[in-house]
Amino acid sequence: MSEFLSKNHAGLAAYVPGEQPTGMEYIKLNTNESPYPPPPSVLTAVTKETLGKLRLYPNPDGTELIKKLAGTYGVRAENIIIGNGSDELLAFAFLAFCDKTRGVAFPDLTYGFYPVYAQLYGIPYEEIPLRDDFTVNFTKYMELGKNIVIANPNAPTGIALPLFEIQIICQSNPGHIVLIDEAYVDFGAESAVSLIGKHENLIVMHTFSKSRSMAGARMAYAIASAPIIEDLNKMKYSFNPYNVNRLTQIMAEAALGDESYFAEKRREIIATRSYTAAKLGGLGFEMTDSKANFIFARHPEISGLDLYTKLKEKGILIRHWDKPRIKDYVRITIGTKDQMDALIVAVEQILFSKY
Amino acid sequence: MSEFLSKNHAGLAAYVPGEQPTGMEYIKLNTNESPYPPPPSVLTAVTKETLGKLRLYPNPDGTELIKKLAGTYGVRAENIIIGNGSDELLAFAFLAFCDKTRGVAFPDLTYGFYPVYAQLYGIPYEEIPLRDDFTVNFTKYMELGKNIVIANPNAPTGIALPLFEIQIICQSNPGHIVLIDEAYVDFGAESAVSLIGKHENLIVMHTFSKSRSMAGARMAYAIASAPIIEDLNKMKYSFNPYNVNRLTQIMAEAALGDESYFAEKRREIIATRSYTAAKLGGLGFEMTDSKANFIFARHPEISGLDLYTKLKEKGILIRHWDKPRIKDYVRITIGTKDQMDALIVAVEQILFSKY
Repeated sequence: MSEFLSKNHAGLAAYVPGEQPTGMEYIKLNTNESPYPPPPSVLTAVTKETLGKLRLYPNPDGTELIKKLAGTYGVRAENIIIGNGSDELLAFAFLAFCDKTRGVAFPDLTYGFYPVYAQLYGIPYEEIPLRDDFTVNFTKYMELGKNIVIANPNAPTGIALPLFEIQIICQSNPGHIVLIDEAYVDFGAESAVSLIGKHENLIVMHTFSKSRSMAGARMAYAIASAPIIEDLNKMKYSFNPYNVNRLTQIMAEAALGDESYFAEKRREIIATRSYTAAKLGGLGFEMTDSKANFIFARHPEISGLDLYTKLKEKGILIRHWDKPRIKDYVRITIGTKDQMDALIVAVEQILFSKY
Repeated sequence: MSEFLSKNHAGLAAYVPGEQPTGMEYIKLNTNESPYPPPPSVLTAVTKETLGKLRLYPNPDGTELIKKLAGTYGVRAENIIIGNGSDELLAFAFLAFCDKTRGVAFPDLTYGFYPVYAQLYGIPYEEIPLRDDFTVNFTKYMELGKNIVIANPNAPTGIALPLFEIQIICQSNPGHIVLIDEAYVDFGAESAVSLIGKHENLIVMHTFSKSRSMAGARMAYAIASAPIIEDLNKMKYSFNPYNVNRLTQIMAEAALGDESYFAEKRREIIATRSYTAAKLGGLGFEMTDSKANFIFARHPEISGLDLYTKLKEKGILIRHWDKPRIKDYVRITIGTKDQMDALIVAVEQILFSKY
């Protein structure tokens, strides 16, 4: 820390991303990336010509890409903003709609970045406990008088909220924002995009990082009522207007043109999730009902940290948090079937190592 | 505006980027892009393999790229942070080092984004008038007791500060940040990077958008003392850790490997600037002594707005601001020699249209 840092940030603890190993080759099941490459349409979208045009700024409005997204999701262009990954759009949303007098609430167990944004901007926040079974207790969010952020499915649990619960949260908080972070929605949960137009206070956020195999390109978008998108754009144009680079815009457009690849890879991940859950269940693991591209599991005979550490020694990266309620758990990203078979063999070796 | 926007932002006027036309083909001399494509090394750096790996998040630390930058500029890796364009790093710097009690100062005529950041975060700011000849009056920044942001060369004037003036500003403000925005430094001004290590409070910011022909890739970096870089990273990791995408990191590394192309294109732009300035001078234009990749000029017989409008009708985009001190001026980006010849013919047609 320098002597120049604002006192506002003295207590700020930044977000710690999952490990991104650069040396050794791991089976990487720790940051919920897709095991599949982007669709072929993305690989052919980047030509020498598009690379030559990198001398020019991107279109800050992302007009063409937003048009395609609007068509894909049945909304209007004025209902969409694009961002340099969900993290950036979340940062814009916290900055736009929260302040010292307009606090925010989210589950006690959820994406670890939400409290960081609140701390960054000095926003009061409330962490509302999940029920003992890790489901979101939607009644705790009714008439709350705060902005609300909920990941659906939630992370790291993978558990999804039914749409009618989101509807009730929106209806009972007409004066505040309800932001539904749908990073994992494509793996089996119901999207709240269908509620856009019904609730003026709803923001739905999607990313290309998981189901669209493009974490490395940094691309996300938010869908909301036109006035909310206008406010988010005000933040973007006051922070970083050219936030989504040229190639990412072009590649995202190309990806949207290949819906069959998208559907196929989602089906494969969902099938591999079922397969892995059955295998882990057979080994004595308890799991939540994950609708995401990961499994949240614990084993009665090994701590989360122990399992994480021993799998890492065997070249497999998973995620573990040293937090009271979930320290027994690990989160395992769904990879290819081969990767999951390797995981299961490694887990068996660890569990039965005393023999 | 929605009813949900924080009252903090009620008066915020976002930055307005230069026009990025998507339909008609203009000769685009309005946003200071390079007229040359990125070096061949960049075009070959993006392979099917790198595109396939887009499923993975980028390295948030940018380790390899930062290593190359450190080698190029003779500093240590701990002295560098990378960003999604200068705008993002500027936003981090304002957020990190300024607050309601730690204000900021910059010239009254400079990059129009600086006051926007201050407004976005509610930071008190002072706009210190340039001298009548548009030079920065460095004595006004001595012992100022505020953070200081200066573009060198300044925009839209193109005028550069001598290094000793920057040194005096740093020395006389030991308790505050001095941020030198060197977006245009490669076209003839002296870089303050040589002062890193001498002044703990100095931040130097560079971009790949101008001299490195990569505006579309979004890539910038800041060089400063290690504690300052640590603070900027705290902002980045509390806002958007994966801020620079995979392809941009790879392409920026490749660009750094081709220093001869870099030097050659800078020389060409400097030569074309001299050529254009001589031609415009012959037509009666007055100009500042620009060390940037643009010319800041006015003509006694035509207003800035008029010249802008008439050139646009002829398919040439330049930039004009409706601000009291500079409303007579236009800013013209240096393009290829052919583009500048086309500009000069168009200007002649406009000036002599009555004949």
